[in-house]
Amino acid sequence: MTQTAALRHQRIAIIGLGLMGGSLAMALRGQVAALYAADPDPHTRALAREWGVVDVVAAGPEEVLPHADVVVLAAPVQAILELVPRLPHWMPRPAVVLDLGSTKRAVCRAFAQLPPRFDPIGGHPIAGKEHAGLAHADPGLYRGAAFVLTPLPRTTARARAVAEALAQAVGAYPVWSTPEEHDRGLAFTSHLPYLLGVALARSVPPEVRGFVGPGFRSTSRLAASSPRMMRDIMATNLEAVLAALERLEDEITALRRLLQQGGPADWEAFFAAAAAYRRYLLGEEGAAPRE
Amino acid sequence: MTQTAALRHQRIAIIGLGLMGGSLAMALRGQVAALYAADPDPHTRALAREWGVVDVVAAGPEEVLPHADVVVLAAPVQAILELVPRLPHWMPRPAVVLDLGSTKRAVCRAFAQLPPRFDPIGGHPIAGKEHAGLAHADPGLYRGAAFVLTPLPRTTARARAVAEALAQAVGAYPVWSTPEEHDRGLAFTSHLPYLLGVALARSVPPEVRGFVGPGFRSTSRLAASSPRMMRDIMATNLEAVLAALERLEDEITALRRLLQQGGPADWEAFFAAAAAYRRYLLGEEGAAPRE
Repeated sequence: MTQTAALRHQRIAIIGLGLMGGSLAMALRGQVAALYAADPDPHTRALAREWGVVDVVAAGPEEVLPHADVVVLAAPVQAILELVPRLPHWMPRPAVVLDLGSTKRAVCRAFAQLPPRFDPIGGHPIAGKEHAGLAHADPGLYRGAAFVLTPLPRTTARARAVAEALAQAVGAYPVWSTPEEHDRGLAFTSHLPYLLGVALARSVPPEVRGFVGPGFRSTSRLAASSPRMMRDIMATNLEAVLAALERLEDEITALRRLLQQGGPADWEAFFAAAAAYRRYLLGEEGAAPRE
Repeated sequence: MTQTAALRHQRIAIIGLGLMGGSLAMALRGQVAALYAADPDPHTRALAREWGVVDVVAAGPEEVLPHADVVVLAAPVQAILELVPRLPHWMPRPAVVLDLGSTKRAVCRAFAQLPPRFDPIGGHPIAGKEHAGLAHADPGLYRGAAFVLTPLPRTTARARAVAEALAQAVGAYPVWSTPEEHDRGLAFTSHLPYLLGVALARSVPPEVRGFVGPGFRSTSRLAASSPRMMRDIMATNLEAVLAALERLEDEITALRRLLQQGGPADWEAFFAAAAAYRRYLLGEEGAAPRE
């Protein structure tokens, strides 16, 4: 069975039609047997109907879940944690359960409590925009993105195949990991950049706003992320985030010392090495690990 | 005399055909009497000829400067500081002198030493890309950007009019300021974001690079800036940069305390306020100054 075949006969229900769920639905259109969605917001449902994003959109998950083979929970982490314990009540039949939450340990712990008829697997496509909501959804959002998949010990080969096929169907590539590895990694690559954006924005005095340009805009871009989403991320990954923040504070201290004690030649060499290390992190050059 | 008329009869020499000078030349094409350029790099000159970026391109400034009414120094700050004292030797006739350097105090101090036949004015278009060089130049680079202009006490109304017309001709809007105001402002809105990008990149351990996504990419984008350009910026604006860095360190400490001592509701409110303040800085909403 090819990866695509693993998806073609699936009826998929997406719970939450925001930026992530909406983009997923748009990208899956025509590649699955049926697409259902639930979203509590009437404007979102109206827009979903107008754009024909899914076959059926309902207010409550209980209206669409009984028809689905695969459930995708596309909501902020706290909302996912509230949805998971209610799935057994809403879904009498077996189903693969995947989520798109930004942290994975808490969600996978909740998944572990599901009755045996559920086949859960954690997921997190590392893609997004700073503007939330279906209005900003984009079928190309996941193209070229890493789609992290964190199976539980109980996750079957079938659920893995479905999740992998889904990642590929939306143009992403699967990255297999554990919830712990994921959460520690994202603390550095996503949660820390967000906090930095917040700290940077707060550092800029109002009287110099006339000098704001594209550099400030992109460096602080993540500060425009949904406060609720970020709150849930902090609540479920606090220890790793604080460790990453401490690492950053050390780097800033080192930079300050370099500026105070070094000279222009030292600065230039340091800056060039940092640029090279960033290219390495982004996979833009071979092996250039930090000294 | 309209602003555009102020430019139409000018012969303009651009010293340095990198990203900034090259983009300026492309955007001015057809709007001025003649466009000359000098660049020491033979590949840059070959590309400039292939693309027809200017009317004449030479290796040394002395070959084109005698024909120009307006000189634009488009190089890293240290290179500008080395060019300025040589202008009197190269240019026997009167000329308006404008630069595009990233800091303004040092350049304007050097401008003040020019003989009276020169009519100098500091300039800094707040635009750019992390990739340098003529190959990345773009006639739309300055569109919608703030073009800071810092006149000296001796700067004439004519030089002001020419500089303003030039800013408008490339699609930017002039922002009048002093060298001191500019350098302090840019320390927060540009030099600090750069240092943050460097510190962030260095904070990410190599083993988590598989989790890098668009958030890290944009937050650290400025870390890919030219190390030489950034070296010169630090060398000519160190005190203001260190003050901005200190402000940022305070904000990071405040964030860490909030995460350690507050709860999810406090975090969400803090994040929402930071996002609103960022929109205010970007001019995306009315008056919402930081508390």
